[in-house]
Amino acid sequence: MKINVPRETLVAAAAQLSRIVERRNTIPILSNLLLRADEDGLAITATDLDMEATCRIKAEVLVPGAITLPAGQLKDIAAKVAGESVSIDATAGERQQAIIKSGRSRFQLNTLPEADFPSLAAGEMPAPWTLPAKDLLATIQQVQFAISSEETRYYLNGIHFHVVDHQDAPHLTAVATDGHRLALRRVPAPEGAADMPPIILPRKAVVEFAKLLPDWSASDAKVAVSTTKLRLEVGTTTLITKLIDGTFPDYTRVIPAPGSTQVGVNRKALAEACDRVCTVSTGKARAVKFAFAAEGLTLKVTDTDMGEATDDVATEHEGEPIEIGFNGTYLQDIAGASKAEKLNISLSEPGLPALITGDGESAALFVLMPMRV
Amino acid sequence: MKINVPRETLVAAAAQLSRIVERRNTIPILSNLLLRADEDGLAITATDLDMEATCRIKAEVLVPGAITLPAGQLKDIAAKVAGESVSIDATAGERQQAIIKSGRSRFQLNTLPEADFPSLAAGEMPAPWTLPAKDLLATIQQVQFAISSEETRYYLNGIHFHVVDHQDAPHLTAVATDGHRLALRRVPAPEGAADMPPIILPRKAVVEFAKLLPDWSASDAKVAVSTTKLRLEVGTTTLITKLIDGTFPDYTRVIPAPGSTQVGVNRKALAEACDRVCTVSTGKARAVKFAFAAEGLTLKVTDTDMGEATDDVATEHEGEPIEIGFNGTYLQDIAGASKAEKLNISLSEPGLPALITGDGESAALFVLMPMRV
Repeated sequence: MKINVPRETLVAAAAQLSRIVERRNTIPILSNLLLRADEDGLAITATDLDMEATCRIKAEVLVPGAITLPAGQLKDIAAKVAGESVSIDATAGERQQAIIKSGRSRFQLNTLPEADFPSLAAGEMPAPWTLPAKDLLATIQQVQFAISSEETRYYLNGIHFHVVDHQDAPHLTAVATDGHRLALRRVPAPEGAADMPPIILPRKAVVEFAKLLPDWSASDAKVAVSTTKLRLEVGTTTLITKLIDGTFPDYTRVIPAPGSTQVGVNRKALAEACDRVCTVSTGKARAVKFAFAAEGLTLKVTDTDMGEATDDVATEHEGEPIEIGFNGTYLQDIAGASKAEKLNISLSEPGLPALITGDGESAALFVLMPMRV
Repeated sequence: MKINVPRETLVAAAAQLSRIVERRNTIPILSNLLLRADEDGLAITATDLDMEATCRIKAEVLVPGAITLPAGQLKDIAAKVAGESVSIDATAGERQQAIIKSGRSRFQLNTLPEADFPSLAAGEMPAPWTLPAKDLLATIQQVQFAISSEETRYYLNGIHFHVVDHQDAPHLTAVATDGHRLALRRVPAPEGAADMPPIILPRKAVVEFAKLLPDWSASDAKVAVSTTKLRLEVGTTTLITKLIDGTFPDYTRVIPAPGSTQVGVNRKALAEACDRVCTVSTGKARAVKFAFAAEGLTLKVTDTDMGEATDDVATEHEGEPIEIGFNGTYLQDIAGASKAEKLNISLSEPGLPALITGDGESAALFVLMPMRV
């Protein structure tokens, strides 16, 4: 393999792909990137055995071929050299080394055989569908915070995607929950998605999606799914990830019917008041008492070590007054995930969960379990 | 005590003083700030028993007095509340609590008795002198990187300040070394400094000086010194720190006489080339071979795992060619501490230290020990 690559392009691709590469690897080749040059240009691939990302970039291919190079070093070299282009040459006598040149710098890096580089690409992915990248991103961003990190309930460690009917039309529905809060968002099911099996997209892939999709927000995201893997194609990047092998619980039982008390509150004012009262909370669980009444909402935290804090927020209140405890951090997470100006909070009893929706955001809903305060 | 403070002022003071407060304290009162209100306004003090900082800020004092409040909470509350001013009231019946109000928020915080708050202020500090804050900052910034972090040689864990004659005039001289590199900077001794005992300013104080002084770069720094403590007054802040109780070694023996090879090199180009070749260095010590010759300087790193890297830099070369090894990180540190466009490197033998000065920066010099490559 012998190629010339514009330096800026290589910097961007290496930085993006380095996110996939684990810092410490017991298998040496997982620290490397696979570079494959053919008549279409250069494809660079990173893998951590659970997820694989490939970037296609334009390059002048003098001799086609494939090599693997250490990801961290290639990223640093591309970022630091002074030339406008970088040449990578693995055609020299010794096949175990590649010579990288740019500006006045010359590097001779040890390579590992490309045949040893693991691939996730094998297998059929029968259910392809296409969604604007910005819609997929918005979906992920709205439910991501509720993913559980409890390893024993591994089937909650990701976002559950499935297609269900809602208001007589099939919707692609994304749900995440950790048992304390739940976030859900629907988009009308794109063509072809109806055949998709229900899946659980693991957290690491969700995080990578959330970093990758903003770069291509004007493009379409092409998704293909099998029972064990998902492939995302967006812009010049192809991402293949394993899925969580488990069954997502029946979350619909957790979503409460509208309660007897309905409260409308400015989302930002609520989040800020909640943040303020939590300053005196020294424990791990930030228990906040919410007193919803016709006059407005009063938030209160009492901490035995630190003291107490109260704050008031104006509300539009309908129904009986109610005092209920919530984890303040969870409420702030929900306020952070919504983009609406106003949140509608539906409550029935102090011991029952709240249903929260963004005003005008019919596609999403949040459920928040109460806590004793 | 009962006061009203402009919120912005309180935010700035609390953020600055929180730097002094240790994250985890076994002595509870060290997590608190001391607030003392009198006819001059409000003075807020933080201490970690080695260093004490006091900020004087303008406040409307309704009832003079003193209390202590948890630093982290006061900082967060000041940053998060919505009012333009913050009222702090500790005059209510129960003397153990203070009521903080701003906007629609109300906090009732537990206090600790002000009498328990430790003070470093006691004792005479006989040798006062004054230096423009920007000169003191420049001095610290130029030698700070060479401070040792080796705890067994505690007397190297700070910057040594003393007054010595240089070119027949007394100079305030700052020196730091870790045995591998040394940095020195002189300023003409300000009036009164001649009586100052030699001192070692500990790293934590150095770091705090470097953060504090830029806020007051147009002001004078007033310094007073005893054998055990130093007091810095700048702007609205007074900082008192304990000094390292030890004897700084006779560093003058380490500074080499000008050698037989003199090299002038662009500082930025040298630092960048050094950074580039170090990308292939996987070990802890970044051993770089420097080949200085009439044609220019070639840097080379050879790493058994990774491969090798070479880079060229143009130089003005006088004298014999010389090949010498240096720690690349240390050379980059020196290049980072100098502000000169060009560095002058004086070399004699591969086994002997290099003397490095910034071209036109007569006040500072650096010594770098060679290493085997």
